[in-house]
Amino acid sequence: MQVFTVQGMTCGHCVRAVTDAIKAEDPAADVQVDLAKGEVSVRSQLASEQIIGLISEEGYSAKAT
Amino acid sequence: MQVFTVQGMTCGHCVRAVTDAIKAEDPAADVQVDLAKGEVSVRSQLASEQIIGLISEEGYSAKAT
Repeated sequence: MQVFTVQGMTCGHCVRAVTDAIKAEDPAADVQVDLAKGEVSVRSQLASEQIIGLISEEGYSAKAT
Repeated sequence: MQVFTVQGMTCGHCVRAVTDAIKAEDPAADVQVDLAKGEVSVRSQLASEQIIGLISEEGYSAKAT
């Protein structure tokens, strides 16, 4: 499980945007978003840098924890 | 122009959700959302109560100003 700190997510739409962006690249990914903590946990074959890139493309600042 | 106070909108996705919900019912509607103020301004043939209903269905609390 890779865990990322993500800034800027504010609502359920944001949760869906981040989740969908990762699942579009890896449909088998398990993505859990904790909106209150600003944390995104991902179980996937994708590289950490790629996940950060996908989240960033949605307009959020992300870094690995 | 009808102006509504809307609570709960936090981001661009919320702005789009509210705008799209109103335009789905009246494609000719002019919808302006001020996210910072929590205000939605609508120029449309739709009744105020109908607009409030559409916004509420998106998950936001709305009332006419």
